[in-house]
Amino acid sequence: MRLVIVGGVAGGMSCAARARRLDENADIIVLDQGKYVSFANCGLPYYVGGEIEDAGSLLLHTPDSLRGWLNLDVRTEYRVSAVDYAAHELTVETPNGTEIIGYDVLVLSPGGEAALPPVPGLAEARDAGAAVHTLRTVDDARALRALAESGGAAVVIGGGFIGMEAAEALANQGLETHVVETAEHILPPLEREMATLATDEAERLGIKVHAATGAQQVEYRAGNTESPLNVRLSNGETLEADLVVVSAGVKPLTSVFTEAGVAAERGAIIIDEHGRTNIENVYAVGDATLSRNAVTGVPGVVALAGPANRAGRLVADHIFRGNTADNPARPIPASEGTAIVRIGDLAAAMTGANRAQLDAAGVTYKTIHLHPNQHAGYFPGAKPIHLIIHFETPGGRLLGAQAIAEDGADKRIDVLATAIRAGMSVRDLIDLDLSYSPPYGNAKDAINMAGLVGSNVLDGVLELMYPEQVTDLGEDWAVLDVRSEREFGLGHLPDAINIPHTELRERLPELAELVGEPGTPGAKKLAVMCAVGVRAWIAYQVVRQAGWDGRMISGGINTLYEWYGPQIADLLEI
Amino acid sequence: MRLVIVGGVAGGMSCAARARRLDENADIIVLDQGKYVSFANCGLPYYVGGEIEDAGSLLLHTPDSLRGWLNLDVRTEYRVSAVDYAAHELTVETPNGTEIIGYDVLVLSPGGEAALPPVPGLAEARDAGAAVHTLRTVDDARALRALAESGGAAVVIGGGFIGMEAAEALANQGLETHVVETAEHILPPLEREMATLATDEAERLGIKVHAATGAQQVEYRAGNTESPLNVRLSNGETLEADLVVVSAGVKPLTSVFTEAGVAAERGAIIIDEHGRTNIENVYAVGDATLSRNAVTGVPGVVALAGPANRAGRLVADHIFRGNTADNPARPIPASEGTAIVRIGDLAAAMTGANRAQLDAAGVTYKTIHLHPNQHAGYFPGAKPIHLIIHFETPGGRLLGAQAIAEDGADKRIDVLATAIRAGMSVRDLIDLDLSYSPPYGNAKDAINMAGLVGSNVLDGVLELMYPEQVTDLGEDWAVLDVRSEREFGLGHLPDAINIPHTELRERLPELAELVGEPGTPGAKKLAVMCAVGVRAWIAYQVVRQAGWDGRMISGGINTLYEWYGPQIADLLEI
Repeated sequence: MRLVIVGGVAGGMSCAARARRLDENADIIVLDQGKYVSFANCGLPYYVGGEIEDAGSLLLHTPDSLRGWLNLDVRTEYRVSAVDYAAHELTVETPNGTEIIGYDVLVLSPGGEAALPPVPGLAEARDAGAAVHTLRTVDDARALRALAESGGAAVVIGGGFIGMEAAEALANQGLETHVVETAEHILPPLEREMATLATDEAERLGIKVHAATGAQQVEYRAGNTESPLNVRLSNGETLEADLVVVSAGVKPLTSVFTEAGVAAERGAIIIDEHGRTNIENVYAVGDATLSRNAVTGVPGVVALAGPANRAGRLVADHIFRGNTADNPARPIPASEGTAIVRIGDLAAAMTGANRAQLDAAGVTYKTIHLHPNQHAGYFPGAKPIHLIIHFETPGGRLLGAQAIAEDGADKRIDVLATAIRAGMSVRDLIDLDLSYSPPYGNAKDAINMAGLVGSNVLDGVLELMYPEQVTDLGEDWAVLDVRSEREFGLGHLPDAINIPHTELRERLPELAELVGEPGTPGAKKLAVMCAVGVRAWIAYQVVRQAGWDGRMISGGINTLYEWYGPQIADLLEI
Repeated sequence: MRLVIVGGVAGGMSCAARARRLDENADIIVLDQGKYVSFANCGLPYYVGGEIEDAGSLLLHTPDSLRGWLNLDVRTEYRVSAVDYAAHELTVETPNGTEIIGYDVLVLSPGGEAALPPVPGLAEARDAGAAVHTLRTVDDARALRALAESGGAAVVIGGGFIGMEAAEALANQGLETHVVETAEHILPPLEREMATLATDEAERLGIKVHAATGAQQVEYRAGNTESPLNVRLSNGETLEADLVVVSAGVKPLTSVFTEAGVAAERGAIIIDEHGRTNIENVYAVGDATLSRNAVTGVPGVVALAGPANRAGRLVADHIFRGNTADNPARPIPASEGTAIVRIGDLAAAMTGANRAQLDAAGVTYKTIHLHPNQHAGYFPGAKPIHLIIHFETPGGRLLGAQAIAEDGADKRIDVLATAIRAGMSVRDLIDLDLSYSPPYGNAKDAINMAGLVGSNVLDGVLELMYPEQVTDLGEDWAVLDVRSEREFGLGHLPDAINIPHTELRERLPELAELVGEPGTPGAKKLAVMCAVGVRAWIAYQVVRQAGWDGRMISGGINTLYEWYGPQIADLLEI
């Protein structure tokens, strides 16, 4: 039995390793068009930035070590140029000329190549020898680090996860660093609220963020040793740069396979739940395949290492163990898209679907915002976790969550990813029995708090108002801000009434004078707010039980800031 | 409607706060026999040790602030001396004399008092004014900190979670600190493997651990300014001390309620799933109640803040919302006993049942040991997580887990607590989609790895041998150690055969000469091992597929060390 695997990183190598464990006698050949296999592509930005000193540590295995460990036949710089599925043969360009390699079973894990966006002048600059780079390979990383160490200015085109990691690496190396992102904010899969804090942190690191801005033209002035690259932006600005890093997405490297007959959609190979393509004995895994979102069911490309590794292993199981009634093969799990990115001192993490995905899928849901501390407030070092959770209405099923924090975002998102996988409701979060001791958590952990808030929303005892709604409340609403006078004085919504929550019960008559007796025709509805939602929730119960109608502003002034960013200054009165 | 709550910490205060949110008009009275309510009892050791500077920060609320926030009537130094359930009346000793307080509904959250073990001389020493203290109240903590700051030597009787936190606090303050624990190891709920590392860390902090040792006699030499206390141990040793801290468990403070007719077992109040006692309109929550273990179903006392808070809130829901078919009350969830303790630079965390609980409950299970890094090995600061997981056989249901690590133990245990709550199988851990980026995790996270190992065990492709089995393998076994020659040279099991895993395939004939051709009558079975289990798993597949019978030593030399502790030196050859 000869298994040929095309692509020796993540999914492909997981498949090869598992195949060997299942069968000591199989002939397992791994072909990769690159110079390296099994390298740590997620580590590349940290090598560029100098945190990882030695590029060698990114090479987790070599063809030699894989021979020793797993008796794999790994061939690098082997590029497939043609496929004959009927004959079970690949035509391969090798350092020693063209070879024909036959297979019994073929696994495609070709991954993608960094796409160069159609910016006029960009490809030309690169072809003319300008410092225009992507960041996909060890050689890319080596080149970028060498360039970064010689200083100057860099423009990163694309502010996604890898783009921001690259930008931070370049800023760490002392470069003047710009990020240009066409979407409304950097890290586009993040919700706006999370992205605001990520942008603030990037700017604190000295990275200049140009969001909602495109690169319109790149000029290369060869021979100009200082800032030989000019990047003209859609807002009219022009950035001078020594280096342009392009991180504008990845294109599946599948044309040779699809042209020969493997079915695909926009380049991504269509597979079933066991990784099988439409061609017999041909499987595919990883970034080059189409998979369904675990929450929405919508198909898409998931370019993440974890899901690729899982799929590779399950494909090996299917090949070597089969799929029988007695011994059914486990299906490849749908990905929740759980991801995390470090940005300065913060981690931004997410799992499940975001608003855009939920809206596109037509799911009905509610969102809650919380800002609890990662551990007991009285223990030194307490810092907030900014947390968003979406859950289905009216059922309560958890749909997605995002968190950004100096500490503890990864833990909460991993717990929520597990809860989503289990099909839990937001109510179930109340009962999660999480580890607590003052340095590590709270007796009511952030996760439990989210359960309490979500449960109150589902029960209808808490109605939320969202940041986008506060700007046009109209005449029949009044804002009740229950923060202290001092906090209120630092900035509040226009015409807000300030009654600190501890005084509210005794000052209800005063409130009635200002907004009308509850239940009377002229009584205004109350938008109740505080800094994060804790005090407002108490106050909201007081005014609701006193008879007023109203809502609580989700996440308080913290969430308003996250929604409006620095423009909140235009919204608030002082 | 008048609700009277006895006990104003954790469960009692959660009940009061929720009650107010549900009903602005209820008359809510909280009685506490102590001077403080709503204080952070989990923070007390950190105040003793000086990490929390100000005792005031432990007082989360005062009667005044609770009046302001929640309109609660909180009365401290109010001790219930008698109950008349028929009359709905409490007799209460107050600073101003005896009062009779009536109730419509009564919630008992009296907690426990630190038990003084029956060590001859201990109570006498305390009564004679010696520095003999427990650590349950703010006043205890204040006294201990004052004593600690004056230096000397301390003996902590009881090496449970609070005892070890107290010991670390005293050592931090510069005291010569001893811990005396009658169980086989400190932190008795931890498995032996975890406790070894905790003991090592305690000793690194300068704490002298006396495990499997009791305190037999305490002598107090009043007037002796230097080391006025002598603690004689069961091993004959005598410790001189300036201070004795007793942390030997907690006794429910329930006699006044049980003597009047509330049903209890060994002092712990018996409640139903809504917190109701056998007496109408009397509920109970927290450390003074009996609850069922979520995994084994065995009843016991859970003295943890999280479960107490949850129960308090649900009792308020049951009281104010009722329990109807339309609007069923949620039951109080069974606790998984999730807990965490910091010890020096390590965190030790646990969830679900341990071996002792599983054995007592007659559950059939397997255990796996792993030592994966908390984040990518190539990223600076990678450190192992020592992880144990128990799962049911043959079904695979997760039963319990423990972890000890410098970083990431809390995250993994919280994910596993969530998985246990969801009723997941160890196989399901493979598919958990957890956040990965080099600073935060691995593409195959520790949790996913545990799923892979557990799944291999359930499938029968991996048979494990445990540390206690390696000492009497007998003639028909041989140990195959696949570590490098250098590692092997540092210490290995007697008569072990060393073939590094990368050479194994080609050296199989040599192995056959040493242990017999596979399948022949004289062939020995192989106990395959490496440092943690990764290389041994590959080697185990090689020898099994070559025809040998055998097992893999779970967790490798790391787990052997954790099992035998420093005594491993007697076991190994060098």
